[in-house]
Amino acid sequence: MTRKLAILGATGSIGTSTLDLIARSPDRFEVTTVTAATNVEALADIVRRTGAKLAVVADESRYTDLAKLLVGTGCRAAAGEDALVEAAAGDADLVIAAIVGCAGLRPVMGAVEAGRTVALANKEALVTAGALMTDAADSSGATLLPIDSEHNAIFQCLAGSRSAEISRIILTASGGPFRAASAATMDAATPAQAVAHPNWTMGAKISVDSATMMNKGLELIEAHYLFGLPSGRIDILVHPQSVVHSMVEFVDGSVLAQLGNADMRIPIAYALAWPERMETPAQKLDLAAIARLDFEAADLDRFPALRLAREALEAGGDAPIVLNAANEVAVAGFLAGKIAFPDIARVVQEALIGADYDAPRSIGDVLEIDRMTRRRSEAMMKASCH
Amino acid sequence: MTRKLAILGATGSIGTSTLDLIARSPDRFEVTTVTAATNVEALADIVRRTGAKLAVVADESRYTDLAKLLVGTGCRAAAGEDALVEAAAGDADLVIAAIVGCAGLRPVMGAVEAGRTVALANKEALVTAGALMTDAADSSGATLLPIDSEHNAIFQCLAGSRSAEISRIILTASGGPFRAASAATMDAATPAQAVAHPNWTMGAKISVDSATMMNKGLELIEAHYLFGLPSGRIDILVHPQSVVHSMVEFVDGSVLAQLGNADMRIPIAYALAWPERMETPAQKLDLAAIARLDFEAADLDRFPALRLAREALEAGGDAPIVLNAANEVAVAGFLAGKIAFPDIARVVQEALIGADYDAPRSIGDVLEIDRMTRRRSEAMMKASCH
Repeated sequence: MTRKLAILGATGSIGTSTLDLIARSPDRFEVTTVTAATNVEALADIVRRTGAKLAVVADESRYTDLAKLLVGTGCRAAAGEDALVEAAAGDADLVIAAIVGCAGLRPVMGAVEAGRTVALANKEALVTAGALMTDAADSSGATLLPIDSEHNAIFQCLAGSRSAEISRIILTASGGPFRAASAATMDAATPAQAVAHPNWTMGAKISVDSATMMNKGLELIEAHYLFGLPSGRIDILVHPQSVVHSMVEFVDGSVLAQLGNADMRIPIAYALAWPERMETPAQKLDLAAIARLDFEAADLDRFPALRLAREALEAGGDAPIVLNAANEVAVAGFLAGKIAFPDIARVVQEALIGADYDAPRSIGDVLEIDRMTRRRSEAMMKASCH
Repeated sequence: MTRKLAILGATGSIGTSTLDLIARSPDRFEVTTVTAATNVEALADIVRRTGAKLAVVADESRYTDLAKLLVGTGCRAAAGEDALVEAAAGDADLVIAAIVGCAGLRPVMGAVEAGRTVALANKEALVTAGALMTDAADSSGATLLPIDSEHNAIFQCLAGSRSAEISRIILTASGGPFRAASAATMDAATPAQAVAHPNWTMGAKISVDSATMMNKGLELIEAHYLFGLPSGRIDILVHPQSVVHSMVEFVDGSVLAQLGNADMRIPIAYALAWPERMETPAQKLDLAAIARLDFEAADLDRFPALRLAREALEAGGDAPIVLNAANEVAVAGFLAGKIAFPDIARVVQEALIGADYDAPRSIGDVLEIDRMTRRRSEAMMKASCH
């Protein structure tokens, strides 16, 4: 049976890996819909390779170019946010939600409200709108399949267990480039040092999140909404080799862990084939060659972002939105040389004081809180700059 | 809903752990049947604690003593092998098969032929009669739940996966007391050195099997019959801390592992509650405290038992029976000071030359091959003694 796919964010890294897997198993999948932010050339190329029937570019000014590029392909062109939301809720058995940032919120919600199975790579959906998303999924019958490696690992380990059987979730964290650094070194850290991640090559923003460990804080919030466990039953464990992608501890004392090489095609393939599994070209794990796995407790003193994220999760309401938006502004400020590394957590902490803990009632509320927080955080950064 | 249990080998270590778990969850279980080899006092004590309705002692000479001890309990006494087989096939939803050695073969087969769910702690059942047991289970609809920690780990990781989704099983091995020893040290190893296992306190026979790694060879054979994978898809990986109890690699590149502290109540509870999970008093795993897990390839030169076991599995027929029986004789000879440590593998290798690779057609055949091999191996040891 062929599975129909909509790929939101088809030209990005997750989209590219998804297309690579689909090209290797052409009989299993039919791509019906693809979208991109601005790159209409790459999008049209994907349409020609997959035979997609609908292509949407978010940037409306690129509509004419896209339409021209699609002439003769039999694929309809569309543009703008409403078209994205329509595409997300359209003809597909599985929606790959790989739009980056808050731009992904409305399309993801569109797919969830339409009751689709959604393979979720967009982090903001659960960090900033977790309760809205999971409530909508409960109402519509939508299924959320996490694609990032930690939550995918947990999903694999849970494999249908009941909540009463789960003792806790153990999110593993590489610890980033400053895992073993002194507080003094971290105080003086430059952007170049902060983006030098030991295990993964990533964009600058997410690399800094790894250096502050805010990425793990955001994943903590995501895990709460995905798996329905309270903050107290989600632990973070530092594991520098990033081979164990996360674990689940059960009430009987068993711990199940998912391990693998760092290849996003593994969790993407899991979502594509779920509830079955499909082959991937990912290199198989060779534990004898890796030889050694280390584990240590996370240091909340050197990584205050972990504490702030947990506080935001436990406070609820708009606090996770404020946490996320203030962090983005602070990281951009750090990368631009406006604030020091420890100031990132300070900006976030100060922004959280301004949270009012009212829960957003719509994606519109989420986006409004996000915008206001960014403005406030920018002002705070300017005021504190020397 | 109460689950009815028959505990075969109730006075041994697995039986005692099972009874400990049942006493903590009295509403979940009703013990209907208990058996023991000879210890009628302990058996009668268990009857009084559990309210079992049938108690069987294997040693017929202890029947009168058992009957006297059970006066007033409302529990029927029985003795002998036929009574054991009847008890195994009697009134129970789950049969805990914890009789040690070849004495367990007929009772386990009785439970399997009666279509029971069998929690299997007896190793000989699958090592010496694997094809007979799994064929009988296929015919009767019996389910085999492995209780030893490695196979229970694999069972947990598989969680209903189809064979086509499994790439390979990775059986972990502590490596035993001679993991890092030189060949010269092993040549001169004394029984006292061989039974000093780094992670577990066990009987002398199984400790020596750990030192030769024959225990892992026997587990390889068990895994083949339990999980239906060929020898080439079952690997052995040395992991000295014995925290990862075993792993499964899937075709997508994911590896699932089960981890836990060394407490047999964890796998026993898994079998008792399956397909759910129940709480146990086992200490939870603290990976930050353990800090480090190591992995290395197994050395087939220093541990020829691993090679012999794989050869016996691949040869099939009576070879696994010969391997098991010759090993028992050789280990006893080593413990008695009759042969040196490297001679254990030599005796087994020589015995395997005498295997005729005809498959046993009944448990009677298995027991006969076992007896003949023991006699031959004893004679071989005497001939080679200086």
